[in-house]
Amino acid sequence: MYREEIKVLDCTIRDGGLINNHHFTDEFVRSVYKSLSEAGIDYIELGYRSSRKYAPPGDYGAWKYCDDDKISEVIDGIDSDMKISIMVDAHRVAEQVFKPVDESPVDMIRVATYVKDIDKAISLTNKVHDLGYETTVNIMAISKENDHDLIEALDQVAKTPAGTVYVVDSFGYFFCEQIQYFMNMFKEHLPGKRIGMHCHNNQQLAYANTIEGIRFDSNLVDGSLYGIGRGAGNCPLELLIGFLKNPKFNIEPVLKVIQDHMIPMLDDIEWGYMIPYAITGILNQHPRSAIAMRQTKQKDKYAEFYNEIADLHD
Amino acid sequence: MYREEIKVLDCTIRDGGLINNHHFTDEFVRSVYKSLSEAGIDYIELGYRSSRKYAPPGDYGAWKYCDDDKISEVIDGIDSDMKISIMVDAHRVAEQVFKPVDESPVDMIRVATYVKDIDKAISLTNKVHDLGYETTVNIMAISKENDHDLIEALDQVAKTPAGTVYVVDSFGYFFCEQIQYFMNMFKEHLPGKRIGMHCHNNQQLAYANTIEGIRFDSNLVDGSLYGIGRGAGNCPLELLIGFLKNPKFNIEPVLKVIQDHMIPMLDDIEWGYMIPYAITGILNQHPRSAIAMRQTKQKDKYAEFYNEIADLHD
Repeated sequence: MYREEIKVLDCTIRDGGLINNHHFTDEFVRSVYKSLSEAGIDYIELGYRSSRKYAPPGDYGAWKYCDDDKISEVIDGIDSDMKISIMVDAHRVAEQVFKPVDESPVDMIRVATYVKDIDKAISLTNKVHDLGYETTVNIMAISKENDHDLIEALDQVAKTPAGTVYVVDSFGYFFCEQIQYFMNMFKEHLPGKRIGMHCHNNQQLAYANTIEGIRFDSNLVDGSLYGIGRGAGNCPLELLIGFLKNPKFNIEPVLKVIQDHMIPMLDDIEWGYMIPYAITGILNQHPRSAIAMRQTKQKDKYAEFYNEIADLHD
Repeated sequence: MYREEIKVLDCTIRDGGLINNHHFTDEFVRSVYKSLSEAGIDYIELGYRSSRKYAPPGDYGAWKYCDDDKISEVIDGIDSDMKISIMVDAHRVAEQVFKPVDESPVDMIRVATYVKDIDKAISLTNKVHDLGYETTVNIMAISKENDHDLIEALDQVAKTPAGTVYVVDSFGYFFCEQIQYFMNMFKEHLPGKRIGMHCHNNQQLAYANTIEGIRFDSNLVDGSLYGIGRGAGNCPLELLIGFLKNPKFNIEPVLKVIQDHMIPMLDDIEWGYMIPYAITGILNQHPRSAIAMRQTKQKDKYAEFYNEIADLHD
């Protein structure tokens, strides 16, 4: 697949950080940044800029906050055309500082929100847009929203300066027909905006759904190294780069950083396809119950887990 | 997805047997047979009926041969409506014995072939059809065939009594657009025949492609427990059963046999998504080079492996 407009965002450090409370070493972040720059990736997302009021520093590593100084220190001296993204939760904004874009290493700010918080997301989007950042609005958990509320939110976002609005399959629930449905909905209600695609791999469909998004005109797609991310993880970046035929992409540095860093990391933290995540995906549920059971001695008692949660309703 | 015509075939024992030379224990085969019967699976494939001339018994376990007596012994006493399938390689037929269907525990014979051997496949299909078996023709490696030759083969198979003809993605190379293309080709050239779907998971697309096959009218789809199968394995049966809404299916026995048998088995043999299989899939190559390198100390040297095989041509 070749379409010049397609841009790739790697969320290894940000979504992977949800597994280890953002305690990645500087050496690891620097290696990933360097490798992805060599691979021709368009954007790298380094973490959240969270409020220290809501997220006390004792509990988290540096990539929970993504201070400008910290980012500058870690990328120092690496030749790169890759843009840097950070994510901010719209409903947890307090004292975070955003400098004007030309005083920051950050290029893009992604505003993560639920439909119910869309006004907060719009307020933050306007604020950081005025500071010169590229902006995206990532509406999470849309598989649990009714169309009336979702479309009302899209119609509001359509009037903002947000450059991109994301279809996010938070629970790894969708298959290709829902991706088509939401891509068409987003295109209709967000004229002129770029549509992004962020998928989870609960049912081994993150890559397939990302392709489906691309086929339906998504031009900003997320992947991560070896699919790292909370629970079942994300679309594997290596597969995405194998699929996209733009000659600017180079798969070798991607393979190298996976063998050097991601495979050894699996000794310490786990992610990827496992039956408990498949079950929450099939049932269109948040993966938190699956993540919790994987920390217990019952971590491979799948039938019991299924029976326990299949009858739960919101 | 609900369509009454959709039938599911589990190939755990057959395709999984390619990893361990078909040395599964009777206890394991019996447990799988019992669990899948309870789950409402339509067909189970127990292995190959290979020629002992081409496959010397010292090298292989019982499921390489699937003698009628052996099958009858292992399933004895288990209440089941599930049909039993075995596979035969069209190009390796010698002294194998096929009794009339009413003297055998086997219900269906799947003839595996390459385009070049299609006349052998047709001969075998005619023979076992006349003995009363359901038959399928599984044309392998079609991602490496030119349309002229493939269509000629399909037009020949169209005239046989084969009930089902399979789209087989041997190398895990296809994404949804090729599945659509081949489903349409097979439907056009095989009027009145059921189309089957057998996918490999090199690029984490086996389940997605199986769904795509179903969307384009495939009514016999293959899966395996936890995706077991050679290399990256097959479409995970648990996901397929989560997707199909026919109330005859029951996911619990599937989850139970995975936790009791498949997870412990991963301590002894490996299968599933790994970078070397992704690489051969992306490059539309047979996975044998990836399988071989996984047996060496270089098993996680992905960049080197990619460089080694990316320049190889048939």
